[in-house]
Amino acid sequence: MPTESTAILLVSCPDQKGLVVSMANFVFQNNGNIVHADNHIDAEMGLFLMRVEWELDGFQIAKDEIAARFAPIAEQFKMNWSLHFSDRPQRIAIMVSKYNHCLYDLVLRNASGELPGEIALVISNHIDLEPVAKQFGIPFHFFPINRENKREQEQKELEILASHEIGLVVLARYMQVLSAEFVSTMPNRIINIHHSFLPAFIGSRPYHQAYERGVKLIGATSHYVTEHLDDGPIIEQDVIGISHRDSVEDLIRKGRDLEKITLARAVLLHLKSRVLPYGKKTVVFS
Amino acid sequence: MPTESTAILLVSCPDQKGLVVSMANFVFQNNGNIVHADNHIDAEMGLFLMRVEWELDGFQIAKDEIAARFAPIAEQFKMNWSLHFSDRPQRIAIMVSKYNHCLYDLVLRNASGELPGEIALVISNHIDLEPVAKQFGIPFHFFPINRENKREQEQKELEILASHEIGLVVLARYMQVLSAEFVSTMPNRIINIHHSFLPAFIGSRPYHQAYERGVKLIGATSHYVTEHLDDGPIIEQDVIGISHRDSVEDLIRKGRDLEKITLARAVLLHLKSRVLPYGKKTVVFS
Amino acid sequence: MPTESTAILLVSCPDQKGLVVSMANFVFQNNGNIVHADNHIDAEMGLFLMRVEWELDGFQIAKDEIAARFAPIAEQFKMNWSLHFSDRPQRIAIMVSKYNHCLYDLVLRNASGELPGEIALVISNHIDLEPVAKQFGIPFHFFPINRENKREQEQKELEILASHEIGLVVLARYMQVLSAEFVSTMPNRIINIHHSFLPAFIGSRPYHQAYERGVKLIGATSHYVTEHLDDGPIIEQDVIGISHRDSVEDLIRKGRDLEKITLARAVLLHLKSRVLPYGKKTVVFS
Amino acid sequence: MPTESTAILLVSCPDQKGLVVSMANFVFQNNGNIVHADNHIDAEMGLFLMRVEWELDGFQIAKDEIAARFAPIAEQFKMNWSLHFSDRPQRIAIMVSKYNHCLYDLVLRNASGELPGEIALVISNHIDLEPVAKQFGIPFHFFPINRENKREQEQKELEILASHEIGLVVLARYMQVLSAEFVSTMPNRIINIHHSFLPAFIGSRPYHQAYERGVKLIGATSHYVTEHLDDGPIIEQDVIGISHRDSVEDLIRKGRDLEKITLARAVLLHLKSRVLPYGKKTVVFS
Repeated sequence: MPTESTAILLVSCPDQKGLVVSMANFVFQNNGNIVHADNHIDAEMGLFLMRVEWELDGFQIAKDEIAARFAPIAEQFKMNWSLHFSDRPQRIAIMVSKYNHCLYDLVLRNASGELPGEIALVISNHIDLEPVAKQFGIPFHFFPINRENKREQEQKELEILASHEIGLVVLARYMQVLSAEFVSTMPNRIINIHHSFLPAFIGSRPYHQAYERGVKLIGATSHYVTEHLDDGPIIEQDVIGISHRDSVEDLIRKGRDLEKITLARAVLLHLKSRVLPYGKKTVVFS
Repeated sequence: MPTESTAILLVSCPDQKGLVVSMANFVFQNNGNIVHADNHIDAEMGLFLMRVEWELDGFQIAKDEIAARFAPIAEQFKMNWSLHFSDRPQRIAIMVSKYNHCLYDLVLRNASGELPGEIALVISNHIDLEPVAKQFGIPFHFFPINRENKREQEQKELEILASHEIGLVVLARYMQVLSAEFVSTMPNRIINIHHSFLPAFIGSRPYHQAYERGVKLIGATSHYVTEHLDDGPIIEQDVIGISHRDSVEDLIRKGRDLEKITLARAVLLHLKSRVLPYGKKTVVFS
Repeated sequence: MPTESTAILLVSCPDQKGLVVSMANFVFQNNGNIVHADNHIDAEMGLFLMRVEWELDGFQIAKDEIAARFAPIAEQFKMNWSLHFSDRPQRIAIMVSKYNHCLYDLVLRNASGELPGEIALVISNHIDLEPVAKQFGIPFHFFPINRENKREQEQKELEILASHEIGLVVLARYMQVLSAEFVSTMPNRIINIHHSFLPAFIGSRPYHQAYERGVKLIGATSHYVTEHLDDGPIIEQDVIGISHRDSVEDLIRKGRDLEKITLARAVLLHLKSRVLPYGKKTVVFS
Repeated sequence: MPTESTAILLVSCPDQKGLVVSMANFVFQNNGNIVHADNHIDAEMGLFLMRVEWELDGFQIAKDEIAARFAPIAEQFKMNWSLHFSDRPQRIAIMVSKYNHCLYDLVLRNASGELPGEIALVISNHIDLEPVAKQFGIPFHFFPINRENKREQEQKELEILASHEIGLVVLARYMQVLSAEFVSTMPNRIINIHHSFLPAFIGSRPYHQAYERGVKLIGATSHYVTEHLDDGPIIEQDVIGISHRDSVEDLIRKGRDLEKITLARAVLLHLKSRVLPYGKKTVVFS
């Protein structure tokens, strides 16, 4: 874990020879020191995916020129790519409904320095959690949503996200489906926590379904949000054992810990630029 | 874990007062020493479920009269019940197709004394695993099955199971759906291993489905077989982490360990009379 | 999980016949309905250990007379025993030093109703966490401790615990060893969280030790406090995987989740009267 | 997972700029296609550690000349390094005593193609497992060891290992401490399975110790053997939950699964050249 400021490149492109050396050369020839390079090849799709992280200290290209200088390499290899800086904290919006456990969890991790970035605002379709946001001095925006006003309210939400330069939206048990339009404005920048081991128990009552089915483990799944419900690229999953003694309420209670941890891990991985989504999947450079 | 011979009663009945004391009294008044008593109430169904295990040494009712002596109590409380003896090993049939890992696993656990009971025969719809059975001196019966002969072959299998007084059938990666007729002859006495975390990925290619979906964990589920595919009462489930580096072949390899362990645990729990199926679920007295 | 009020008896005594029936009879003959009875025999020590829980509704003995009425049975069998009521919430004191994660975790679980009982006060040898206690309206007591004043300060702490009728003390990362005298006043009523998988890495720097040793898992252990450091009866343990990429700081970060969850589970089990310590061990009736 | 033949370089050296690009260049300039490159920096030790794997197909240096051609680079950067080929299976010796579960497990994994390499011989200080080796057609060598003949017998073992060109020795529950002299002949090429979560419960009776201590999890640890007992670099660890119901025998039974899986994973990682030991630790490129 470098304490120095670093730059990170995430790239994906058709596989061919010379990709690793090209990436490494870009860093080396500009006097950079690579702290971590890792790549993956999806043989089925013929896709090369890579993450390179190097120290900015001593690097001969100024931070705001790196992208322009890397662009020709990216073009040559037809790369999808993104550039990140460890010392440029992302601005985060958290969307919630009535459950407070994931909100508290994220805010406390952020306050302790464990989760980088700045939690710039909390958005909710209910007023209930305003006191929690206020307790930590975070602006709270209330957008009640019904069938009639959904388009209009989402538009306002997008405006507020834009005006705050939000880079990541975290759905921390937000119990309202986002429209395809909303989702498409922030591709791979909205992370959701689903309270089941997807693809089991899609929908809104997974703990009840798990109880009915008599499973012996329950799970949680954090994933990027796409326009299809509970179907986005998975970042992290975890499970915990249950028994016949556990009521639905016990499942909900045990599930809260899973939800908190699985969501926090995904958010941390994303903020450290360790997740590279492609197709319906992710590469997690951990 | 008592090393002495014990008797075990598994009962389920409508909940009412006096059930625990009635069960305990039956043992005590006949001079038995209870080594373990555990009960559960399914409040939703109003159902009382209990397991009582006591030492036979000193018990004043002869083994083969216990059932008759317990019957009036069972009748009084409208109990579903079964009586088991730790020193009367069950006779087991293992049904397999072409994969050998679960077969080897069960046979070796049995040989080491870890898995009680007697593996009396191996039945297969393929000839491939005959050498494995022979290696351990277990009779192997080959019943090739196609659409035309399925009914007839299953009939022969049932006959051979009956003639060997088989008490438990283990489907150790048997890649053929048993008919409802077959299943109904041995309710809650056929255990299957499904190579996914049910109810995710029902059907015959769960690892391929898991790979396509990009999940971060894969699972295995052991359950009693009912006439509905992959829908019987679950006994045991487990999962293991995977990553983007894992190909379908890696999932299959990692899954083998899950399958072996999850199946062996379920079989052991069943053989120790620790599983009480009711409705679509099980109580596991562990 | 009964929603009705229940009584719970925890007993341990030399094993002999008739114990289960005597316990069950006490409930039944006074018109009680057992919701859960479970026993264990430690064959090596010849010890019988049992937990019985029954509904108070309809029970013919008044709550404050139950103990007196059960005493003769306890005497007959030489039982160690305790009586608990699900509707009589325990009063809890949390002792902390500078780390806030376990304190926040317990307070939030309590506020959400997940953790029963009343957190009556927070005691600390540092002033740092006073704002957290105040944020939730919990009285905070500051007792700085050094070699000279330890005896005196502990005496004051004991007085304040007594005056608040505290039934359970939780050491939520309290970085100060309690004296044997202090511990002896509350046997099996002080729960500590140790940030390692005991008995590995005893002492004050387990994450550093784990990093030095190059282990691939780190753990946490919650246990009752005895006069011997990190040696009390274990209630709950858990682990999480780490890799060569994890620095000491990463271990500390990952460990915080372990600590929170492992401590909260132990406290919940204790508050539900599901833990029966005996000798150097515990029976956890889960 | 490349199905093509690949070459793998494992290197460690003092960290400096240009290491990744030098490694990648060596492959690229000779027309190789990198399938996986991953590096790690141990900041404390100032050490750079890397694994590079590339396809041999099309690579312009003949296999048996690669080492000589890479040597100057290695010298330039003062690298410790080793070169491996995925299609050159290692020759493996398994050392056992009386327990057969790990032996069976490794042999069956090897037979199924899951574990690459050739199990060339089984060595034991007891005669008991000769039938198992014979069952699978593997030569069995019996070297009874006592205080007097230990030096002499080990010498013979080393000769037989050398004559069979053994590249990896697996101690599959070999209950005899190897001398420092023996160990020093095969540094980082002897893998042991210890039946505890090291560093807890060092020595010969970890399950008994775990039972006495009343832990709630038991573990297993696979590690390279060094001259200090149970202190070598750890490759893999795993745990499983236990309860008060588990006797020492249950711990031994549950532990067998842990031992088998933890050992097999470590052996597989080693055979795939994914483990890079340094100092008292390992980097596992997984």
